Amino acid sequence: MTTGVRRRMGVEERKQQLIGVALELFGHRSPDEVSIDEIAAAAGISRPLVYHYFPGKQSLYEAALRRAADELAARFVEPPRGPLGARLLRVMGRFFDFVDEHGPGFAALMRGGPAVGSSTTNAMIDEVRQAAYEQILAHLAVEEPPARLELVVRSWVSLAESTALLWLDGRRVPRAELELQLVHDFAALAAVSAAYDAEMAGILIRILADEPADGPFADLVGRLSALVPRVPDQPLR
Amino acid sequence: MTTGVRRRMGVEERKQQLIGVALELFGHRSPDEVSIDEIAAAAGISRPLVYHYFPGKQSLYEAALRRAADELAARFVEPPRGPLGARLLRVMGRFFDFVDEHGPGFAALMRGGPAVGSSTTNAMIDEVRQAAYEQILAHLAVEEPPARLELVVRSWVSLAESTALLWLDGRRVPRAELELQLVHDFAALAAVSAAYDAEMAGILIRILADEPADGPFADLVGRLSALVPRVPDQPLR
Repeated sequence: MTTGVRRRMGVEERKQQLIGVALELFGHRSPDEVSIDEIAAAAGISRPLVYHYFPGKQSLYEAALRRAADELAARFVEPPRGPLGARLLRVMGRFFDFVDEHGPGFAALMRGGPAVGSSTTNAMIDEVRQAAYEQILAHLAVEEPPARLELVVRSWVSLAESTALLWLDGRRVPRAELELQLVHDFAALAAVSAAYDAEMAGILIRILADEPADGPFADLVGRLSALVPRVPDQPLR
Repeated sequence: MTTGVRRRMGVEERKQQLIGVALELFGHRSPDEVSIDEIAAAAGISRPLVYHYFPGKQSLYEAALRRAADELAARFVEPPRGPLGARLLRVMGRFFDFVDEHGPGFAALMRGGPAVGSSTTNAMIDEVRQAAYEQILAHLAVEEPPARLELVVRSWVSLAESTALLWLDGRRVPRAELELQLVHDFAALAAVSAAYDAEMAGILIRILADEPADGPFADLVGRLSALVPRVPDQPLR
């Protein structure tokens, strides 16, 4: 893991190198298990020099998390073109790439605990959740979301987190299946809310209107129709 | 808030009284904002006497959380009779009662942070999640859940948590609506999983078969059928 390079680096370059090394180590094991000695060895510098750039493990951890949070938020960005289901599916693919790459670190962070549950780290988690929330609203082309839409989107973001965490614990279901399932879960949660609220129904009908007949949403509705027992149609409200 | 009573209590009785006082205070404000002085005043005893029973605020907080966790887990218990949708709806009612009673404390706990995010508190949260998970499996009459069912149930438990937290933040949607919505969300998440997996489809069909024509599940399916555009039936697998 050592770089083997001992040339002099500038301050900012060295800090960025240390953050990269730390992100790699913190991503693969719980932060509790990673020592400053290990980080120093992996970076090819002395322990005191690490402390010269970062006053302690917590500050280096938070800097690594800052970079990871920015990287994850960047993966949410998707051009606002084409059917929504396909866009969301591409974002889910990049989200699971991230979770896959940073598995143990992601799990340790989201599960909290002494080393990772500081107010700084919690604020960064909330910031990424907020970025996801805002991206989805932008794709839905909704500027002032009603309370029920906010609830659907934010609770779906938390569902995506918990699904990823459950996936990491044993990886017993293929991730591609879960990526598609989360796209469907979004439609399903929106549909449940829409079933009892006219404003949500209007938003859902607009989204579904743009979906192609062979897209993931139409496929789901077809499969569900075949699955659930037929009941007589009821008027909406 | 003081009891006004100064009679001698036994050790266990005094501890239980302090836990009750602490639970009340920790439930209504973030633990960071509650001092030992306040707890002593509310219990009508001196600060040193509080320390005699509990070595510090964290140990008293954990004891209060222990009682709250047991109380919440007890609310999940529901007789295994009648349609599943109605059972789940009653449990959701009791869950939101709990969230309502302990709002700020519940929020502070679930959002983690320095005062509340210890490994002990995280273990208690996981224990309550596990109790919820096991209760649901028992009601589904499934002893060895396939990985996909475990994922649906556990991710729905996390959805119930996040929905309750979002509700606490402003209470902009009536809680009765969210209780019903969570019952429907459970069916919806199970249905999404069932749409692509034959084993899950079998479990879902068995559940839906016991639902009455005028129950919450049938009502939802009727409303959704009226909402989504008709697509041609497709065979399941």
